[in-house]
Amino acid sequence: MILHVSTWPEIERFLSASKTVIIPIGSNEQHGPTGLLGTDWLCPEIIAHAAEKLAAEQGEPVLIAPTFNIGMAQHHLGFAGTISLRPSTFMAAIEDWVMSLARHGFERIYFLNGHGGNIATIEATFSEIYARYSYRGEVCPFALKLTNWWDLSGIAKMCSVMFPTGHGSHATPSEIAITYAAYPDQVRDVVPDPKIAPNGPIREAADYRARFPDGRIGSDPTLASIEKGQQLIDAAAISLLKDAARFSAEPVPPKAVS
Amino acid sequence: MILHVSTWPEIERFLSASKTVIIPIGSNEQHGPTGLLGTDWLCPEIIAHAAEKLAAEQGEPVLIAPTFNIGMAQHHLGFAGTISLRPSTFMAAIEDWVMSLARHGFERIYFLNGHGGNIATIEATFSEIYARYSYRGEVCPFALKLTNWWDLSGIAKMCSVMFPTGHGSHATPSEIAITYAAYPDQVRDVVPDPKIAPNGPIREAADYRARFPDGRIGSDPTLASIEKGQQLIDAAAISLLKDAARFSAEPVPPKAVS
Amino acid sequence: MILHVSTWPEIERFLSASKTVIIPIGSNEQHGPTGLLGTDWLCPEIIAHAAEKLAAEQGEPVLIAPTFNIGMAQHHLGFAGTISLRPSTFMAAIEDWVMSLARHGFERIYFLNGHGGNIATIEATFSEIYARYSYRGEVCPFALKLTNWWDLSGIAKMCSVMFPTGHGSHATPSEIAITYAAYPDQVRDVVPDPKIAPNGPIREAADYRARFPDGRIGSDPTLASIEKGQQLIDAAAISLLKDAARFSAEPVPPKAVS
Amino acid sequence: MILHVSTWPEIERFLSASKTVIIPIGSNEQHGPTGLLGTDWLCPEIIAHAAEKLAAEQGEPVLIAPTFNIGMAQHHLGFAGTISLRPSTFMAAIEDWVMSLARHGFERIYFLNGHGGNIATIEATFSEIYARYSYRGEVCPFALKLTNWWDLSGIAKMCSVMFPTGHGSHATPSEIAITYAAYPDQVRDVVPDPKIAPNGPIREAADYRARFPDGRIGSDPTLASIEKGQQLIDAAAISLLKDAARFSAEPVPPKAVS
Amino acid sequence: MILHVSTWPEIERFLSASKTVIIPIGSNEQHGPTGLLGTDWLCPEIIAHAAEKLAAEQGEPVLIAPTFNIGMAQHHLGFAGTISLRPSTFMAAIEDWVMSLARHGFERIYFLNGHGGNIATIEATFSEIYARYSYRGEVCPFALKLTNWWDLSGIAKMCSVMFPTGHGSHATPSEIAITYAAYPDQVRDVVPDPKIAPNGPIREAADYRARFPDGRIGSDPTLASIEKGQQLIDAAAISLLKDAARFSAEPVPPKAVS
Amino acid sequence: MILHVSTWPEIERFLSASKTVIIPIGSNEQHGPTGLLGTDWLCPEIIAHAAEKLAAEQGEPVLIAPTFNIGMAQHHLGFAGTISLRPSTFMAAIEDWVMSLARHGFERIYFLNGHGGNIATIEATFSEIYARYSYRGEVCPFALKLTNWWDLSGIAKMCSVMFPTGHGSHATPSEIAITYAAYPDQVRDVVPDPKIAPNGPIREAADYRARFPDGRIGSDPTLASIEKGQQLIDAAAISLLKDAARFSAEPVPPKAVS
Repeated sequence: MILHVSTWPEIERFLSASKTVIIPIGSNEQHGPTGLLGTDWLCPEIIAHAAEKLAAEQGEPVLIAPTFNIGMAQHHLGFAGTISLRPSTFMAAIEDWVMSLARHGFERIYFLNGHGGNIATIEATFSEIYARYSYRGEVCPFALKLTNWWDLSGIAKMCSVMFPTGHGSHATPSEIAITYAAYPDQVRDVVPDPKIAPNGPIREAADYRARFPDGRIGSDPTLASIEKGQQLIDAAAISLLKDAARFSAEPVPPKAVS
Repeated sequence: MILHVSTWPEIERFLSASKTVIIPIGSNEQHGPTGLLGTDWLCPEIIAHAAEKLAAEQGEPVLIAPTFNIGMAQHHLGFAGTISLRPSTFMAAIEDWVMSLARHGFERIYFLNGHGGNIATIEATFSEIYARYSYRGEVCPFALKLTNWWDLSGIAKMCSVMFPTGHGSHATPSEIAITYAAYPDQVRDVVPDPKIAPNGPIREAADYRARFPDGRIGSDPTLASIEKGQQLIDAAAISLLKDAARFSAEPVPPKAVS
Repeated sequence: MILHVSTWPEIERFLSASKTVIIPIGSNEQHGPTGLLGTDWLCPEIIAHAAEKLAAEQGEPVLIAPTFNIGMAQHHLGFAGTISLRPSTFMAAIEDWVMSLARHGFERIYFLNGHGGNIATIEATFSEIYARYSYRGEVCPFALKLTNWWDLSGIAKMCSVMFPTGHGSHATPSEIAITYAAYPDQVRDVVPDPKIAPNGPIREAADYRARFPDGRIGSDPTLASIEKGQQLIDAAAISLLKDAARFSAEPVPPKAVS
Repeated sequence: MILHVSTWPEIERFLSASKTVIIPIGSNEQHGPTGLLGTDWLCPEIIAHAAEKLAAEQGEPVLIAPTFNIGMAQHHLGFAGTISLRPSTFMAAIEDWVMSLARHGFERIYFLNGHGGNIATIEATFSEIYARYSYRGEVCPFALKLTNWWDLSGIAKMCSVMFPTGHGSHATPSEIAITYAAYPDQVRDVVPDPKIAPNGPIREAADYRARFPDGRIGSDPTLASIEKGQQLIDAAAISLLKDAARFSAEPVPPKAVS
Repeated sequence: MILHVSTWPEIERFLSASKTVIIPIGSNEQHGPTGLLGTDWLCPEIIAHAAEKLAAEQGEPVLIAPTFNIGMAQHHLGFAGTISLRPSTFMAAIEDWVMSLARHGFERIYFLNGHGGNIATIEATFSEIYARYSYRGEVCPFALKLTNWWDLSGIAKMCSVMFPTGHGSHATPSEIAITYAAYPDQVRDVVPDPKIAPNGPIREAADYRARFPDGRIGSDPTLASIEKGQQLIDAAAISLLKDAARFSAEPVPPKAVS
Repeated sequence: MILHVSTWPEIERFLSASKTVIIPIGSNEQHGPTGLLGTDWLCPEIIAHAAEKLAAEQGEPVLIAPTFNIGMAQHHLGFAGTISLRPSTFMAAIEDWVMSLARHGFERIYFLNGHGGNIATIEATFSEIYARYSYRGEVCPFALKLTNWWDLSGIAKMCSVMFPTGHGSHATPSEIAITYAAYPDQVRDVVPDPKIAPNGPIREAADYRARFPDGRIGSDPTLASIEKGQQLIDAAAISLLKDAARFSAEPVPPKAVS
């Protein structure tokens, strides 16, 4: 079930069967000379929608929220087209998404993330949200979970087999392959120079651009292909359903308010 | 040009020809028993993408940013599936989008809005952003513009002809028609009761649900059809291109910093 | 009853008869070469105090809060004497006024506004306040209402008759007339040049001053007179009492907390 | 010169002669069974306006800003009619007033305060404002000063002679006398019981009301009279002019940005 | 009992006997050419730990929280080594400390302060915290108290006897003596020039450094000695225990929630 | 050099030789029945001070700032004595520490962290700080680094040898050993039950206490000893000096402001 093409009575019915919702979350930022600016939000969206389709076919529907498409990408602001939230803004926005969904009775809120630079802020936000309850000594009625699509079971191994060298950490062939599979008319043929990009620490945008002139970190995106992308999507979709099911089924201890 | 399926060098090139970017902005909220939860962000997205295609065909490309899909919908939180930002969060997020795009050199930032409940907060945000410059006596290097799709030239008249009665102001047949045209497999056949929904003031979610039991305000969404939706999209796309062109061409007076 | 020259036991007694309070709200900002800096907060104050007097004479007292005299006027900061709150500050302050008054049991909080630039932020604030309740699924115990004095019944028509041309939208002859009627020793005789000021969009302060060199927008304030001002005050006071009475009497639907 | 009944060109002219502005600041809060809710903002307003008149007569005009009428009165919220800002809101608002006035070139911003509960927050705000410059190593172009009217030269002694017992610290006969002198038709004849109110610490509103059932602290407001009020106003107005003049004339050391 | 070298079950047991906790709070800022940067947080820490030892010996343990070591020192930022919080940050942090301790059941939270520049912000924070309860009409379950170590009974008199001239108000011989007594190997022999530092108002950092070139205000720190420091510590420790005991024993009136 | 027992001229001199400062940062939170509440801030403080001593002996002084002793520990608030900042407060405070130190010319700011729960928020804060520069296209004049003491070179291996089973992840024998070595009179002899604590996810405080009844996660703290603690301190101190030296010496690419 895709939330934004459903009606509210349909969501209400879904809630009587399941309390879990999956939110694709990413970032809109430069991905080197061949990667799409939307790569980091398109990947979790593509995987989540593939999983949704699979689940529907299996008769065990899952619910996918709209994609949270702008994340924390301050270090990429030196490259045109990047749109970033400050961490503090990102936190407030995630909090509002969560409190909206919790208001309807969702008890398991699962973020499928597509951007490494989001992780710290999302986790800090989870603490900010939980803290509302912790200071008051109240029981929080929902649980939050963050999973990066590349950490889904089996994906890291598949990537290392597909891309033994030149995977890198930004504008990677795996993420670019996924977008190429979903948007086959958006494949770019540019060959970046050097073929494998440099590595280094990540700081502010001016420093980033000086270290990584075309935006990539450690990657050779020419290794990406539509076929590899499709393989990754298929595997990730299956793993996502398993991971979300485990989360949904996780027992909660009897909590006492002190 | 769709920003999120472009690369950063492509956006950089675009900037040498145009300094204008269009952002579809809306809300994810209940739209009665037959309207999709995404209606208010799907409509400006659909219209903006239609306009982009038209412009590309005409050889005068326009740039469409990713869709800002969650807006200010606190009053709809009594209906499952609604996701809202608080006005203060919404403001911070819009500010970050604008400052990101301004960083790249965009000088005309045009929001195509799909949700009436967003208007006040978006306009307040424009003032918040301009105020950064006004307190310091600095010249702001960009201009901001908000247009609701239903205020695009010709659309209001077209709606009043199409829907002489039962248009209403929430879950209207016009917005539902647009989504039906774009997502023809998502047409719902439910006939709401009463056919035309009641009217009244908008306050907090509990009050809203008491006044408007199925979520609609003043509307009869059964009037929506795929055909009417397509007509609206076509007309709105043309008007959007004209309105954005006017905004891009608007002369700026010589400003002195006092 | 004027709140600030009342004692707390008197307000407590008033609350046993009525739950409505009226807050004049405006802005302190340039009003061209002949308008007073306080025009936008003086107008609602003058009208509200006139209405209060009238109501007292009729034996049906209304309660007027102190005037909220500084609003959102960032665009006027290029002219000496303007004092503005940022929208975010304005929101926090309105919220505190409302929560203070709600604490005492007021259930109808009516803002009589004197500044167009305030409208978006005040409405965004109403949503911010209501959102406190909407996210928690709580019933909000009070209702908020914003009315601009020029939108009071009969006033727009009276203005168009009095000032068929040259009314404009900032430093208008109607608002200046009202202040002249209340402060007859503050009439200024300056004749601005050009007689009717230019029109244009409103952005940051430097842009504003470049477009509107003496501060006016579209107006010819020489049309203002003490007599016209008094007519406007008298008519607005009557309309205000009616509008506030309607608001006080408005039925509230039985709300259920979901 | 009263800012809000001046025009912007008049303020601009004033600035060529003086860079000082005086802001009456107070609070709107209960003042026992006989004191007006506005007492704490009316007192500095009354004194500042009296001083302005005196200064005008002497041909050395001073500029009085609109009154900042709502301050920090959280502890009085248990009594009807009290309106309070949270300290954090109060800080943001004072900051915006200061930055607006500094924008126009004011270099000496003088707050004449009427509420003891405001002092800590106003001083914290001064630090917040100065900190903007201190972190960046910049020179702040203006100086801020806070004076409570009861600390103006000669006033404390006058109060102790007028009210040797029963002055107390809230709803004092001195502040009530000042409002009675300015609003002679607002004198209340109630005799509170006990005649002299109790003393104690100030905490939250529920605690305050339990300790101080009618709102007063340590005072006997029946000692107030119109005559005493007028004496206090006259003396305070003279002292205010001297204090403001000293502040205006204070030399500033040559500052280097480190 | 020193909280940070205790275990949680030990604190839980302490709470069954006492609901009071003492927090040393200060600032890390320049203290002239001979004073330690930590002076303002070391002094309350030294005194509080001395008091704790004394109390333990007397069999009436008191609980000392970790030291809040960074306060509001924006005006000292022109001198290397100063670390300051903005007032708004300081407020948020104090609030979190208080809400954490209140969560465990502490009902008397006593701040022993070592920095004059902290006072306004700490008091504003107390109001911010109490306001949470006051707006809602709730009873606050704890009381807050701020005492500067130099205001402890007997200390001011002792200082005036020890340092009849040259005490001044920043980098005073009394505070420096206390740190010398606790850190005898950190005595500095530098003789500042002039021997007694100048006086003046405190504003932003650039202004401060221009007025007070070596950082001191009005003080002659060469008067400090280990012996005098020890006398001050001994006396302050005794006074602190008495003051904290009084606070713990203070009766609270029966509060009603209105 | 310990910053807080230095004077400002000494820090100024230090800055002419080195631009690096090390900040011990941790948390004050429950550490099971035998661990000290201060464990997480004491460990980095102990290691940093040991390193400082070593460096001084080697004639290559390093500078240690005061310890940032309260971190993000919302999940431990169910246990008495825990003091936590909300992530948003923690971020603001870290930002102010960094901006203070950067003001003095520090270019390498190194956080030695002692609490896993701090990591996400500290990293989010680094992004928030860098973002100030990235949105404006400015070069940030300093670099930030976070290292957990257990990630210092050689420490993880040493721990796995010392504690092959029962190390766990909270109230670990390694961190408890370090505090015991530094505070030998604070060793607790309690034997917790079960000897090895359970594992599980971390959420809000009520959930945490239900899952981990005595506060530990996966650890057997009875394995801690003073001797092991001293070995860890010695090894960590050496590694810290090497890591900080590498950070100080790291070349920065020539940055261009775009």
